[in-house]
Amino acid sequence: MTQKADTKFKREAELGSHEFKLACDILDAGKVCHVGFTLDDQPYVVPMSYGRLGDQLLIHGSVASRMMKSLTAGLRCCATVTHLDGLVYARSTFNSSMNYRSVMVFGTARLITDIDEKRKGIQALVDHLMPGRQADLRKSTIKELNATSLLALPIETFSSKCRTGPPEDTKSDLDARVWAGVVPLELTPGEPVDAPDILPGVIRPDYL
Amino acid sequence: MTQKADTKFKREAELGSHEFKLACDILDAGKVCHVGFTLDDQPYVVPMSYGRLGDQLLIHGSVASRMMKSLTAGLRCCATVTHLDGLVYARSTFNSSMNYRSVMVFGTARLITDIDEKRKGIQALVDHLMPGRQADLRKSTIKELNATSLLALPIETFSSKCRTGPPEDTKSDLDARVWAGVVPLELTPGEPVDAPDILPGVIRPDYL
Repeated sequence: MTQKADTKFKREAELGSHEFKLACDILDAGKVCHVGFTLDDQPYVVPMSYGRLGDQLLIHGSVASRMMKSLTAGLRCCATVTHLDGLVYARSTFNSSMNYRSVMVFGTARLITDIDEKRKGIQALVDHLMPGRQADLRKSTIKELNATSLLALPIETFSSKCRTGPPEDTKSDLDARVWAGVVPLELTPGEPVDAPDILPGVIRPDYL
Repeated sequence: MTQKADTKFKREAELGSHEFKLACDILDAGKVCHVGFTLDDQPYVVPMSYGRLGDQLLIHGSVASRMMKSLTAGLRCCATVTHLDGLVYARSTFNSSMNYRSVMVFGTARLITDIDEKRKGIQALVDHLMPGRQADLRKSTIKELNATSLLALPIETFSSKCRTGPPEDTKSDLDARVWAGVVPLELTPGEPVDAPDILPGVIRPDYL
């Protein structure tokens, strides 16, 4: 099956704002990025939550993790965010496809050590993952902040790819009496599940 | 925020079937994998559709793509499948988390050249992505098969990670009058959209 790209942008810092905005839109719509790096000739691709602060992609993890240590030490990486938007049912296997939006961000991450910048970054992560939640949470302790590595990957060198729209069949397949079209897919929230140890009288907040 | 793993398995070929079954369950529930590899010291993480045939993860792409050429030439890779199952609202930023299932498959892919094996593999891809669709589609032509590289990555060395269940808060946070719990997330199909050039009288199949 083919995976056609309707749009493909590669951007270095000197390029325009359109591609940057597209990349940020794709990033802002996601919750999980896949971070790739290679250690001892073996590539790893690790799912991570993330946030964005301007032109910085923020990822975080335990100070103790090998991945965070390696990235902190300047190992090049690639962080990819993908949305699967639909299955594209063409009239042939070859032209069957997927609708998707994806952005790959390439580069070297910087460890955020300044405590105020770190607090701000972690707030951006929470705002990204759980909009509205921030105000309900106590301030992170210094111990908690010290146990977390926060990395900033510049959104400077990246590549966005998208496919949208109906199947594109070979002309000779168009008279096949086979259904063709798109089944849209979306990551959908279900009914919230209260924690078993929730205090009596605490109700579900509006931001859920 | 922490990302705790309730279960973590690393498996080499000699290990038991439980971990293999878990990995296959995670793989079979997904549509997109993220394939990581490094070229000229730059890691890439590329979203790909995939299928599974027994203990082989199947990925495919254009014969002309640099990625397929590199993987065919024996470049080591990592293919990761992740399901984001929920957002875990803890009573602190530090203990906030996500529920997820993820498997990383490590290794070197083999190019499938035998035409019968290739047909069978591409059928497995279609069955995986669009169950029930296969019977409606014409046979792929030799030209189409020749334009596609099909790779088999053995599900032999892999690592599965999952997090399930409610937030795990620090004891001293449990008296905070803050809602805590999980918002489940699921990739959900929407109403199918007919292709604009669909023949009159062709109806939506039951497998959608």
